[in-house]
Amino acid sequence: MPVFLLTNDDGYFSEGIKALREELKKLGRVITIAPDRNLSGVGHSLTFTAPLRMRRVDDDFWTVIGGTPADCIHLGYYVLLDGKAPDLVCSGINEGPNLGEDITYSGTVSGAMEGRILGIPSVAFSVFGENPDFKEVARVCLDVVKMVLEKGMPEDTYLNVNVPALPRDEIRGFMITRQGRRAYVEKVLKLSDPARKPLYWITAEKFGWSLEEGTDYWAVYHGYVSITPLQLDLTNYRALEILKKTWQA
Amino acid sequence: MPVFLLTNDDGYFSEGIKALREELKKLGRVITIAPDRNLSGVGHSLTFTAPLRMRRVDDDFWTVIGGTPADCIHLGYYVLLDGKAPDLVCSGINEGPNLGEDITYSGTVSGAMEGRILGIPSVAFSVFGENPDFKEVARVCLDVVKMVLEKGMPEDTYLNVNVPALPRDEIRGFMITRQGRRAYVEKVLKLSDPARKPLYWITAEKFGWSLEEGTDYWAVYHGYVSITPLQLDLTNYRALEILKKTWQA
Amino acid sequence: MPVFLLTNDDGYFSEGIKALREELKKLGRVITIAPDRNLSGVGHSLTFTAPLRMRRVDDDFWTVIGGTPADCIHLGYYVLLDGKAPDLVCSGINEGPNLGEDITYSGTVSGAMEGRILGIPSVAFSVFGENPDFKEVARVCLDVVKMVLEKGMPEDTYLNVNVPALPRDEIRGFMITRQGRRAYVEKVLKLSDPARKPLYWITAEKFGWSLEEGTDYWAVYHGYVSITPLQLDLTNYRALEILKKTWQA
Amino acid sequence: MPVFLLTNDDGYFSEGIKALREELKKLGRVITIAPDRNLSGVGHSLTFTAPLRMRRVDDDFWTVIGGTPADCIHLGYYVLLDGKAPDLVCSGINEGPNLGEDITYSGTVSGAMEGRILGIPSVAFSVFGENPDFKEVARVCLDVVKMVLEKGMPEDTYLNVNVPALPRDEIRGFMITRQGRRAYVEKVLKLSDPARKPLYWITAEKFGWSLEEGTDYWAVYHGYVSITPLQLDLTNYRALEILKKTWQA
Repeated sequence: MPVFLLTNDDGYFSEGIKALREELKKLGRVITIAPDRNLSGVGHSLTFTAPLRMRRVDDDFWTVIGGTPADCIHLGYYVLLDGKAPDLVCSGINEGPNLGEDITYSGTVSGAMEGRILGIPSVAFSVFGENPDFKEVARVCLDVVKMVLEKGMPEDTYLNVNVPALPRDEIRGFMITRQGRRAYVEKVLKLSDPARKPLYWITAEKFGWSLEEGTDYWAVYHGYVSITPLQLDLTNYRALEILKKTWQA
Repeated sequence: MPVFLLTNDDGYFSEGIKALREELKKLGRVITIAPDRNLSGVGHSLTFTAPLRMRRVDDDFWTVIGGTPADCIHLGYYVLLDGKAPDLVCSGINEGPNLGEDITYSGTVSGAMEGRILGIPSVAFSVFGENPDFKEVARVCLDVVKMVLEKGMPEDTYLNVNVPALPRDEIRGFMITRQGRRAYVEKVLKLSDPARKPLYWITAEKFGWSLEEGTDYWAVYHGYVSITPLQLDLTNYRALEILKKTWQA
Repeated sequence: MPVFLLTNDDGYFSEGIKALREELKKLGRVITIAPDRNLSGVGHSLTFTAPLRMRRVDDDFWTVIGGTPADCIHLGYYVLLDGKAPDLVCSGINEGPNLGEDITYSGTVSGAMEGRILGIPSVAFSVFGENPDFKEVARVCLDVVKMVLEKGMPEDTYLNVNVPALPRDEIRGFMITRQGRRAYVEKVLKLSDPARKPLYWITAEKFGWSLEEGTDYWAVYHGYVSITPLQLDLTNYRALEILKKTWQA
Repeated sequence: MPVFLLTNDDGYFSEGIKALREELKKLGRVITIAPDRNLSGVGHSLTFTAPLRMRRVDDDFWTVIGGTPADCIHLGYYVLLDGKAPDLVCSGINEGPNLGEDITYSGTVSGAMEGRILGIPSVAFSVFGENPDFKEVARVCLDVVKMVLEKGMPEDTYLNVNVPALPRDEIRGFMITRQGRRAYVEKVLKLSDPARKPLYWITAEKFGWSLEEGTDYWAVYHGYVSITPLQLDLTNYRALEILKKTWQA
């Protein structure tokens, strides 16, 4: 029976993690450990400058006080599982998609990245679309989990999965995709606090991504589940060759 | 005269950012905007769920209350520079190296990543070795900045620079490198607070990286300045091809 | 049917607030609004430098993200109750006592203090003793609530109630008390983090209070429920007279 | 030569603490230890659930990372002074007054309260009025410090001092006062974040206090330095007698 280590970045109380937890339980043991608050936008943060506390929520269900998704994977693996690797790390289901460059800010993706750093097959799950039915989405996630368990994945990769918020029978299938590019402009709103001192709020004009075929966005836009294999190596090898020629000559 | 936008993740008061600021001023105008506290390990976090405040420290020198390096780049670009792109985003000088997979947690690298996302050439600077002389290190960083300004770099890349903590004339030169791999094992210390409740501290056995030729660690270990071109695209293209064959068949 | 506004400082998920909520429901409508994390030791903090978010937990049950007990009372009164005063503000049940000068650090007492500032009769509840049965303690608290509703209290006071962790039939009755004095010495532990940098932990040698008759500690130590009426006026009138003579002469 | 322990709640970088530090140095040794960020409204918070870090700013000048004024007094006394009591604890100069019930939220007053809890004569300083000249205000504060050192104060009290933002020669003298009462109504602004989710901001209609003779507000309003002796005992003795009669009968 497989063992799953489950986290998210929306907080342990979120609908998405609860729905995924229930589905995963159909397949095996699920150790859930998630932040005690919403950490959207927190990226791949790890708390190594202060000690952490855990609080038990329920059987095999814990929350880390002030912890990040990466912290949760660490404590789940080294403390709750006592260093015994789970079969799969799952992160999510995030409310809202993780597409294009935005995944660099994503706590959800960061949970799966941490699993990969620790040498464990890992998948991040997010939902694309308004008012998702998380139970329905979780069933689709379980289909992906089954594929990972049956067919495996290369050792140096982890997966970023985005599921359209559609009834399961309206989803057109899975698509292996590459990371897309966002096509929106960020901006900073200038506001005033009640004492008329300036405040700045980072936001976006309107979210959107380039509709290029083969990308994560293209897939979910057309009703497919997008599965993007990611890597820990951020090296730009093409630029590396160019710089070697132009800088070191 | 070039305009620089400078941030870091150690806080606006750190020696590293002050030394780099002084050096950059020799070349152009330097807008410094940095977090008001040490944010090491914060990764690529962006604050979009709350408004931010800035506090003026000095001429062209600001701090963002509770802000991350990515927040600082945003406010620097959209507010201080009013949306006019600087010639270069610099992040650092970080106290301690940013090598191998550890860069995924790095606030310093995240500052440069944010510059790249906003379409600006960007460089992250870190120092490798004990008790660095930041003035000396900053002079080496300036040499890199000059190369970037003179020779340029490909549009889809940003640079992760690690400088050995050596006198400038003992440095053996620059080396264009790829991201290495860490060779240390993390662990979680189990402690007790004064009330005997359990605490967990994420740490490492002993830091270290694989000494493979061509990597960032190999370069600094041998006394070279390591310059690693990075990219925003995290897609694992090799795994993508494999998954297309094995999963979609 | 009376309306209660209930908060605490241990977090909305704590056993103490849940037990008190269930008991209060027997008497009237209970609006519960509490911090989303444990804020012990936070004192009388009010968040006026940033906006706050609420999250609905259940019917008439809310949590304030990053909010303090005083924030909760504000949002409960002005937002949930739309400015209509509840009949009683309750804060607690705190896990651990609030006795002597320690109440100046108490988030639990601060919740009741805020109710008093807003002009509402208010009571803080804490439990003295190990391994309390919160259901049992909550029943004793309800007895106090009934006395407040029936007999009233002076307009310029709010109550600090400490309940011994005893079966209800072993409690010797109620005692109106004055604030005692602590008889323990604080200290600061000097520790090292895993990188051998110094850390300081504020703690106490051993908790304890002066066993003077008529004090809060004397009451709970002897098995009574301690009820201490408190005031918002911190003026030391005796010292005021002395200073008028010695300083202004 | 007297030893002063100085903190504040606006952060170690604030003008008020720097001005007071320079003045106090004329009289003796000044150990300054203050929060690394603005903590206005934090009340009497003490951090006993996590360890703290200090960072040296300058000679006899430290900041506590994430620390409160009460934390600073603890670390100053037990660590920097190694448990040897200073002659006086000073807190401030706070930008803005601390009058009436508002002092219960005041981090500045809390710094002095903590000194008193530790058995040390303690004074909190705040300024009333717009655009204060902190050097001028600090000179007035030094006059109060001299009086405390010369004339002493009762053992069970600490002082809350509010200085009008006037040139020193326009100040009409000192006045020993009692705590006043605020005469403003708080409110909660209902806002929306950029994603149109509700936010709540606690603020006040317009600040103001009752102009009763003998109060802190009356004094500063009329150009006097207000000196209010405070106490740690929050017991409402009048209410205590009433409750004894009405509740215990």
